[in-house]
Amino acid sequence: LRNGVPEVIYCQGKTVEQIQGIVERMIPHHSNILATRADSRVHEGILALTDDCRYHEMARIVVVRPQPVTPVGRIAVVCAGTSDIPVAEEAAVTAITLGNRVDRHYDVGVAGIHRLLDSCEDLFKANVAIAIAGMEGALASVVGGLVSCPVIGVPTSVGYGASFGGLAALLSMLNSCASGVSVVNIDNGFGAAYQASLINKLATGACDERGRRTRPINP
Amino acid sequence: LRNGVPEVIYCQGKTVEQIQGIVERMIPHHSNILATRADSRVHEGILALTDDCRYHEMARIVVVRPQPVTPVGRIAVVCAGTSDIPVAEEAAVTAITLGNRVDRHYDVGVAGIHRLLDSCEDLFKANVAIAIAGMEGALASVVGGLVSCPVIGVPTSVGYGASFGGLAALLSMLNSCASGVSVVNIDNGFGAAYQASLINKLATGACDERGRRTRPINP
Amino acid sequence: LRNGVPEVIYCQGKTVEQIQGIVERMIPHHSNILATRADSRVHEGILALTDDCRYHEMARIVVVRPQPVTPVGRIAVVCAGTSDIPVAEEAAVTAITLGNRVDRHYDVGVAGIHRLLDSCEDLFKANVAIAIAGMEGALASVVGGLVSCPVIGVPTSVGYGASFGGLAALLSMLNSCASGVSVVNIDNGFGAAYQASLINKLATGACDERGRRTRPINP
Amino acid sequence: LRNGVPEVIYCQGKTVEQIQGIVERMIPHHSNILATRADSRVHEGILALTDDCRYHEMARIVVVRPQPVTPVGRIAVVCAGTSDIPVAEEAAVTAITLGNRVDRHYDVGVAGIHRLLDSCEDLFKANVAIAIAGMEGALASVVGGLVSCPVIGVPTSVGYGASFGGLAALLSMLNSCASGVSVVNIDNGFGAAYQASLINKLATGACDERGRRTRPINP
Amino acid sequence: LRNGVPEVIYCQGKTVEQIQGIVERMIPHHSNILATRADSRVHEGILALTDDCRYHEMARIVVVRPQPVTPVGRIAVVCAGTSDIPVAEEAAVTAITLGNRVDRHYDVGVAGIHRLLDSCEDLFKANVAIAIAGMEGALASVVGGLVSCPVIGVPTSVGYGASFGGLAALLSMLNSCASGVSVVNIDNGFGAAYQASLINKLATGACDERGRRTRPINP
Amino acid sequence: LRNGVPEVIYCQGKTVEQIQGIVERMIPHHSNILATRADSRVHEGILALTDDCRYHEMARIVVVRPQPVTPVGRIAVVCAGTSDIPVAEEAAVTAITLGNRVDRHYDVGVAGIHRLLDSCEDLFKANVAIAIAGMEGALASVVGGLVSCPVIGVPTSVGYGASFGGLAALLSMLNSCASGVSVVNIDNGFGAAYQASLINKLATGACDERGRRTRPINP
Amino acid sequence: LRNGVPEVIYCQGKTVEQIQGIVERMIPHHSNILATRADSRVHEGILALTDDCRYHEMARIVVVRPQPVTPVGRIAVVCAGTSDIPVAEEAAVTAITLGNRVDRHYDVGVAGIHRLLDSCEDLFKANVAIAIAGMEGALASVVGGLVSCPVIGVPTSVGYGASFGGLAALLSMLNSCASGVSVVNIDNGFGAAYQASLINKLATGACDERGRRTRPINP
Amino acid sequence: LRNGVPEVIYCQGKTVEQIQGIVERMIPHHSNILATRADSRVHEGILALTDDCRYHEMARIVVVRPQPVTPVGRIAVVCAGTSDIPVAEEAAVTAITLGNRVDRHYDVGVAGIHRLLDSCEDLFKANVAIAIAGMEGALASVVGGLVSCPVIGVPTSVGYGASFGGLAALLSMLNSCASGVSVVNIDNGFGAAYQASLINKLATGACDERGRRTRPINP
Ligand SMILES: Nc1ncnc2c1ncn2[C@@H]1O[C@H](COP(=O)(O)O)[C@@H](O)[C@H]1O
Ligand SMILES: Nc1ncnc2c1ncn2[C@@H]1O[C@H](COP(=O)(O)O)[C@@H](O)[C@H]1O
Ligand SMILES: Nc1ncnc2c1ncn2[C@@H]1O[C@H](COP(=O)(O)O)[C@@H](O)[C@H]1O
Ligand SMILES: Nc1ncnc2c1ncn2[C@@H]1O[C@H](COP(=O)(O)O)[C@@H](O)[C@H]1O
Ligand SMILES: [Mg+2]
Ligand SMILES: [Mg+2]
Ligand SMILES: [Mg+2]
Ligand SMILES: [Mg+2]
Ligand SMILES: [Mg+2]
Ligand SMILES: [Mg+2]
Ligand SMILES: [Mg+2]
Ligand SMILES: [Mg+2]
Repeated sequence: LRNGVPEVIYCQGKTVEQIQGIVERMIPHHSNILATRADSRVHEGILALTDDCRYHEMARIVVVRPQPVTPVGRIAVVCAGTSDIPVAEEAAVTAITLGNRVDRHYDVGVAGIHRLLDSCEDLFKANVAIAIAGMEGALASVVGGLVSCPVIGVPTSVGYGASFGGLAALLSMLNSCASGVSVVNIDNGFGAAYQASLINKLATGACDERGRRTRPINP
Repeated sequence: LRNGVPEVIYCQGKTVEQIQGIVERMIPHHSNILATRADSRVHEGILALTDDCRYHEMARIVVVRPQPVTPVGRIAVVCAGTSDIPVAEEAAVTAITLGNRVDRHYDVGVAGIHRLLDSCEDLFKANVAIAIAGMEGALASVVGGLVSCPVIGVPTSVGYGASFGGLAALLSMLNSCASGVSVVNIDNGFGAAYQASLINKLATGACDERGRRTRPINP
Repeated sequence: LRNGVPEVIYCQGKTVEQIQGIVERMIPHHSNILATRADSRVHEGILALTDDCRYHEMARIVVVRPQPVTPVGRIAVVCAGTSDIPVAEEAAVTAITLGNRVDRHYDVGVAGIHRLLDSCEDLFKANVAIAIAGMEGALASVVGGLVSCPVIGVPTSVGYGASFGGLAALLSMLNSCASGVSVVNIDNGFGAAYQASLINKLATGACDERGRRTRPINP
Repeated sequence: LRNGVPEVIYCQGKTVEQIQGIVERMIPHHSNILATRADSRVHEGILALTDDCRYHEMARIVVVRPQPVTPVGRIAVVCAGTSDIPVAEEAAVTAITLGNRVDRHYDVGVAGIHRLLDSCEDLFKANVAIAIAGMEGALASVVGGLVSCPVIGVPTSVGYGASFGGLAALLSMLNSCASGVSVVNIDNGFGAAYQASLINKLATGACDERGRRTRPINP
Repeated sequence: LRNGVPEVIYCQGKTVEQIQGIVERMIPHHSNILATRADSRVHEGILALTDDCRYHEMARIVVVRPQPVTPVGRIAVVCAGTSDIPVAEEAAVTAITLGNRVDRHYDVGVAGIHRLLDSCEDLFKANVAIAIAGMEGALASVVGGLVSCPVIGVPTSVGYGASFGGLAALLSMLNSCASGVSVVNIDNGFGAAYQASLINKLATGACDERGRRTRPINP
Repeated sequence: LRNGVPEVIYCQGKTVEQIQGIVERMIPHHSNILATRADSRVHEGILALTDDCRYHEMARIVVVRPQPVTPVGRIAVVCAGTSDIPVAEEAAVTAITLGNRVDRHYDVGVAGIHRLLDSCEDLFKANVAIAIAGMEGALASVVGGLVSCPVIGVPTSVGYGASFGGLAALLSMLNSCASGVSVVNIDNGFGAAYQASLINKLATGACDERGRRTRPINP
Repeated sequence: LRNGVPEVIYCQGKTVEQIQGIVERMIPHHSNILATRADSRVHEGILALTDDCRYHEMARIVVVRPQPVTPVGRIAVVCAGTSDIPVAEEAAVTAITLGNRVDRHYDVGVAGIHRLLDSCEDLFKANVAIAIAGMEGALASVVGGLVSCPVIGVPTSVGYGASFGGLAALLSMLNSCASGVSVVNIDNGFGAAYQASLINKLATGACDERGRRTRPINP
Repeated sequence: LRNGVPEVIYCQGKTVEQIQGIVERMIPHHSNILATRADSRVHEGILALTDDCRYHEMARIVVVRPQPVTPVGRIAVVCAGTSDIPVAEEAAVTAITLGNRVDRHYDVGVAGIHRLLDSCEDLFKANVAIAIAGMEGALASVVGGLVSCPVIGVPTSVGYGASFGGLAALLSMLNSCASGVSVVNIDNGFGAAYQASLINKLATGACDERGRRTRPINP
């Protein structure tokens, strides 16, 4: 892999030692390494190897050898409630680290539709939107109805009782009556941002996940 | 039971003969008898007994010995798409027969939020709203966020794949992030209208399901 | 929002710091602020800001700047067993704080139907009843069959094995053979009380969730 | 197997030819042969072999070589609604053919609890009760609370939407808050009657499924 | 309630204080009080009130004011594996306290069918059998096929992965191909023993749950 | 809406008359109208209005007033087996009608991985890939691992038994271990193509769903 | 592919024309072509091409260009009830066509354990056993406990109510307490036979699915 | 049981004391005793009895009285990701202890198909392959398509959200489009290895689980 292309470590279910081993092997070759689902113990484990890293606590992400990238395009990260913010931040920090400009629209759940409508002007500027919501997950449909760009829905496990760990929001988003909406796994802010980045780069003519320049194939 | 109070027969899973038997026993004592989930064969079976009946085909309801009642209050019946109309009509015809004024707001799904917002002024006049939607069922939450009256959500079995026969809409409505929303069974337009009627009658001081006048207990 | 109208904070999944921030912003403008799903650490966090608050431990609710409201109407809170009491109290305290008169009927599960039948005279006085039960959730149907006012069922997560975290009671209530029953999410005592309050206020001509006076639209 | 002891053929999923084959092999050795889940084509197929048979249409049972047995003890078959009657009749006809006295209590669903309470005196005479209900299945708990004999619950597939083919009633009965209730498969009227017969025979000192006399082991 | 009839407290989800309160109210009137799902803290809480109690640790049951009852009849408690023993002991201790003679057949899972077959002679003596198994729950069917008395299946939550907390065993037992098998909730050893006791008492002519003598109604 | 932009009618659950009504209202203002989930009766109903239409039988789509559009970019439609072709054709015909160049790669299921690998060179040219598979749905992950463009997975209801109507493939795709994969509803070829078209248009600088030209926002 | 190696067509969900096309392409190169899930219309469609075929009606399999193969080894096909026979025959005919010797043990369900025990001597001769059962699926565990060869369980969709289309049997078999049992999809007699054939060929030193001779790698 | 044949103790859900008791009874008669699902406390408990044991920490297995066995044949243990390694090691250590030669192919998930393809030459040498994967479980199908030996799939509980504790991988593997794949319970590395050992021994002519020599029955 080319130096400079981001690499990703999914930390959940790995020991700090395993993560340290992986980070050590990557450091010589990569910058902007993303360690996702990283708690403070993972952060400390990485700090013990290098202090050239930054911990985004709310996003549960450590970026190792962070390097500024000039952000391109525009990805909207929209989320329904306060409890969805960790997932939203996982998406936002991932997208930014992958080199995208990101607009955050938090706490715009559909029970207070006017807050979301007030965001519309900004939402319309995005090349791709990420809609993050737990409970009934209606946000993806409403955002999908408002914007004309692709929307990636992220159901979250926020809720209780009949939310069944995010199942309600997941089914809701999969059945979206708005066209242009696709869905990733429950709480998968990273996955949504990864695909959003691919789309935003296509829109702006920037380079793809393999570091190859993406140009319009048929102008 | 008092003469004049509506009686209800749930026809699904009953033979035409069984339904005829029940209708015959009721006719001497009741008017405005509701036969719900009635297909054309049920209608014909009832016609064979009496032509003092009216068939609401879309609602799948036969009203036997229909009698005009001066409608009171205001119930809003709101539905998302064309395919939800049979359930919406079951609700509307039930509510009207039970003596309520009904406003229909059809085809106002959340993927085109502006159609719903245009209905707001009228929605605000209702004492109670019934929100009917299949697929992702987001309508209940959005309506619940807009109005300040009680909202009864009716998930419908409209959809395919991961709608799982209305489960997606049901879970969605049960997890509504809007306060003031409760839910009835999938496709149960009758049940929603029945409870809405109780509430509307309480609001207008009209009589309850047992024919007793409902007055504010503490003015 | 008008001073005097209750505001609500759902504490589960929020840090004490986040809750303190929200309370601080609300205190100047509101009284009777409800902090639901509040454990003792939340209570202490709020006490650190103000001692003008009251902790209802069983209900897991802190009322901040509690102010006496003359209660109107009558809401019956009916629950099946001892283990359902926290949910019942969440409903009762919410309804009282929202300005409703509340009658508690606890420990009247259907396995001992005579205790419930003994409550009937009192139940008949209610404008709306809240039926709370875990395990098989049969209470909602039996109460719905007895009373002629609207009934809001609250399935609880009480039980084990095939109760599947409240799913059995939820499905049971959604399939109630009694007319006039609607359902809210598992353990959602607050949501039931909120809708019950809207209905009770409609019945008594008191004001709605937005502080506007609710009058019968068609007398 | 002893001549005279009832034999059972479960007809669903078997061809008329297969059923004829089985009946032919049994006729020389057995009387009171039960062919359950038998539609009219099965009845005709059996009639082609012998007219010494009786078709219980509502119960969907053909009894081949029916022979009067002096009924012993008392089994109560209790069912909630009209649509549950086929399952109730499967239970009643099975129990009668197995030599038990049967009392039918139909249409005593919990939404009208007084009808059930009116049956109590009779219910108390039973050695064992079978409680049959679809939708929310609350009947099993209420009957279980009323009687002091064993209760066998039979959930039925009657209902729609969130009844999920009888799952709601099944889970409801499994979570019964009344002691002394056990459950058989959805719609399994036969199975309930078979076990009820074993219990009733134990209570009356009659013979068991193998034709051996059952006496109290420790008086 | 009559002095001498066993009373039951289900301790799970109750505080030690609540349990102490209930025990205190019962002690003057009852003996052989069963406190089920009782851990050692519950035991200590009860000991603080009275030392006239006995803790069955494996069964998780405290019997308060235990009194010898001459056991009648015969109940077989059969279980598949070592991990099912706590549920089996809950059943056995309950049945014994309710005054039944109990035979334990433990560790006779179907994977080693010969151990179960070796138990047959003893099993045949029982008036009723309780079959307890987790994982695939096949024991209920095999026992049901062997014995001619009623069998009550108790699925347990023993297992992992696709056992889904006892669901696999529950569904397995509900679908038993053996006649004469009914089922109680997952891990509900108490419920199975309670019903088994009713049946065993009927068989032996002893008294019922209400303390009334149970005699064969038709000799 | 602008003349020339494609409009869509979802025909499932609508009567031929309803569809004719919608088509008639659209014809004066739109071309390339897509009627999806259209069987031959729908086709005939539309033919009765106009013969300016084309029926894609395998795709179950009627295009009314079809007009050639110069296709831009490149969308790969990849499907696993013969039975998935109706869904694949729904996607392909939708994408083509919306103005995209489409490459079909059919019958390249993962059980014969070499057929898929042989398609790689072509797959690499796509701006976006649609991966369609039933049964275990593994195709989405394998395609996602091969290409560096966004992948939209479409689970299909192809399969039996534990495929549970497409649930297995749906869960499989949602859990894809490949980055860059999102998912739409079971059998939703239309929805995948709609989003793929939005992405492909962004990549090629063509116009969006509202007919506005999409340009890179930050070059 | 080598001439002489069996090829397989899964007919469900394919038109007769599609199947004819596939058969036509295969006939020149293969014999013993298996067309599974073939109803009589499929049979007739193939007969229209060639009469060198044999229809196994119960197994729903057409073998095209059937050629005798000297059967090797020994596979036991064991099934619980009459209704499971179509799946058992699918397995048996597949295994025979693939060149294996097959012993059928039908109607040996666990409710009558002695019939199964009587088969033991024969079962012990098998290199691999296929255990086929619906309802509670206990057969796989009991067979697994008896034999010392690998057992492949096939849950069937036979049953009703809580069998949920084979789910109960599937979960039961996956949780088998017997070692040496693995499971294939519900009703997948073909898949079980295919793997059983691979194992039986390994045991006998015959050739594998690719026609290569399978020898012990380390003697 | 013969001295020398491995015995197995499943430690999950057993106390250290129970495990010590079982080990003590086995030690005089067996070597190569497998204690699976053993944490370090179990290890210490066994060490307290004997130091003739070896703890495989990653596999969570203690082998008591380990004895070298000359390994025969060849079993491939293939796993998708780092988090699946505990299950893979449970399989590998079990297979080795049972006397099989084992090749480990770890971290060859389908998202990077080329790593798996690079393993092919080695995979082709196996008599049987075990494919272990969580998340979408696609590995079993891809391996099944590549190799011509039997494949045993082991879904793991690795994943989050819509993996539902391994359900996604389980359903995926059960629906494998590759022939020759069967499945064991989620995380059941032991069970897969046990069956793989039976197959490998059949292939190599070594002895079976009962210590009897397995020879080709029909050469
Ligand atoms: N469409 C409907 N959906 C659900 N419940 C209904 C419906 N129509 C009637 N019911 C209920 O069914 C009862 C009548 O049932 P039955 O006695 O079976 O005719 C009424 O009292 C209503 O509570
Ligand atoms: N209606 C029924 N529902 C469930 N099980 C039944 C029913 N009728 C008969 N059975 C059982 O099916 C067995 C006969 O099955 P078979 O041998 O397939 O005819 C009987 O011994 C009963 O255990
Ligand atoms: N095959 C399809 N599957 C899913 N959604 C569709 C399909 N075809 C059309 N739609 C959606 O359905 C909407 C039209 O629905 P309707 O107004 O009911 O005809 C379109 O705007 C699409 O979003
Ligand atoms: N890790 C494992 N997963 C599943 N089953 C196991 C495992 N280890 C052992 N077993 C099975 O459990 C049996 C021993 O169970 P037990 O008698 O409870 O120790 C063995 O014979 C195996 O069939
Ligand atoms: Mg849009
Ligand atoms: Mg509102
Ligand atoms: Mg009522
Ligand atoms: Mg009782
Ligand atoms: Mg029996
Ligand atoms: Mg990729
Ligand atoms: Mg074995
Ligand atoms: Mg293969």
